Amino acid sequence: MQIDMKQPILEKNDAIAAQLRQRFADAGVFVLDLLASPGSGKTSTILATIDALRDEFNIAVIEGDIASSVDAEKIKRQGTSAVQINTGGACHLESAMIKRAVDVLDLDRLDLIIIENVGNLVCPTDFDLGENAKVMILSVPEGDDKPLKYPGVFQVSDAIVLNKVDTMPVFDFNEQAFRDEVHRLNPTAPIFPIAATKGSGVEEWASWLAEKIRAI
Amino acid sequence: MQIDMKQPILEKNDAIAAQLRQRFADAGVFVLDLLASPGSGKTSTILATIDALRDEFNIAVIEGDIASSVDAEKIKRQGTSAVQINTGGACHLESAMIKRAVDVLDLDRLDLIIIENVGNLVCPTDFDLGENAKVMILSVPEGDDKPLKYPGVFQVSDAIVLNKVDTMPVFDFNEQAFRDEVHRLNPTAPIFPIAATKGSGVEEWASWLAEKIRAI
Repeated sequence: MQIDMKQPILEKNDAIAAQLRQRFADAGVFVLDLLASPGSGKTSTILATIDALRDEFNIAVIEGDIASSVDAEKIKRQGTSAVQINTGGACHLESAMIKRAVDVLDLDRLDLIIIENVGNLVCPTDFDLGENAKVMILSVPEGDDKPLKYPGVFQVSDAIVLNKVDTMPVFDFNEQAFRDEVHRLNPTAPIFPIAATKGSGVEEWASWLAEKIRAI
Repeated sequence: MQIDMKQPILEKNDAIAAQLRQRFADAGVFVLDLLASPGSGKTSTILATIDALRDEFNIAVIEGDIASSVDAEKIKRQGTSAVQINTGGACHLESAMIKRAVDVLDLDRLDLIIIENVGNLVCPTDFDLGENAKVMILSVPEGDDKPLKYPGVFQVSDAIVLNKVDTMPVFDFNEQAFRDEVHRLNPTAPIFPIAATKGSGVEEWASWLAEKIRAI
C-alpha cells in the first residue's frame, strides 16, 4: 500500500496561500518568491535589488532558512525590515510559515515583499506561498546543465536571474546552450544575466520587477 | 491535529537500508553516499576519484537525479558502470531505490559503489542508504557560511570535500572561518580541498577513501 501524503499537504498549503494572495492584493503589495540552490547568491541579489528599488518602493524581506539568521542580519544591516523563518529542518517554505511572518508586517505600508526561500532547487517548486511571481537564480559556477537536471524549477519561474556572470571566464559555462534549454522548458521567462555583488546587470532585472510592482 | 509522516517513512527506509548494509558487507563492497548542492561538482569529483582508484579497485556508480541521465552518461563514457535512478521529482534517494539499482549490479565483482545523491543539502541527510560513509562536497563559489546555514549535512558527513579551490581568488571565501565552523559541528571529519576538474588535491582525498575500502 502506498499513501499519497503530498496531495493533502499541498491542498492545505494552497488554501492558506489563497487567503494570503487576497490579503496581499487588498494591501496592494507585490510578493516575490525567490528560489535557488545554496550559495547561488540569493541574499546578494536581494541586497542589490533593494538598492535599485528602495527610492521608489517600500520593501520588506522574509528570510527562510533551515537554521541561523545570518541572511536576515545582512538585510537588516542595509536598513530593510527582515523577518526570519527557521524551518527547523524542512527543505522549503510553506504558506503557513509565510502567514506567521506576514502577521508581524504592516502590509499597508509595503509595496514589495521578497521571500528568500530555502536553498533548494526541488522542494520549494510545488509550494504556492501566495506570491505574485516566482523567480529563480542560477549561478554560473553551478553549470549550464542545470535546466536538464532540475527542469521543474525552471518551468515554474516567471523569470530567471543568471548570477555571477563575471566568473564565466573561470567556468566552462555555455550560455547559449543554457538559454536554449531554458527556452525549451519555459519559452516566456526572460533571463537576466547579473553579477549581484558587482552590481552589473541589476538595472535590467530591477526594471522588469518594478514594472510588475507598478502594475499591481 | 498534526500527523508525523516522517517517522514511519524513515523506519521503512532504515529497515531496507539494514538489509542492504548486510548484503554489502557479505560481498565486501564499500559504499559511499555523496551529498552536495546542485552544481558543486559531484560528477567531476566522482570522475576524478575513479581515475585515482580504478587501478586498485572495481568501481560502480549509482546516479540519483530528478530527471535526465546526463551524469550517468558522463560516467559511462569513462568506462565505468553506472546505474541511473530517476527519483521522479523526489529531492533525495531512499534505500528502496538503491535496492533496485543494486539488484542489477554484480556485488561480488565490486570493491566500491559511489552513490551520487540528488543535488540537495537538506533532504538526503536523514536517509540511510546502507552506505559505509556519507561524504559531502561543498564548492568554494557557494560561500564559507554554508555550515551555519545547513548544519545537518556537515554533522552527518564522515569527510568533507571542498571543491573548486582553484577559484578561491575569484570568490570571497574565508577558508579559516569555514574550517572553524565545520570543526565546531563535526570535530572528527577531515576536510579535503580539491579542484576536481584540474585533478589537484584529489590524491589525498582518494588515499583516505582507499584506506577505508581496504579496511572492509
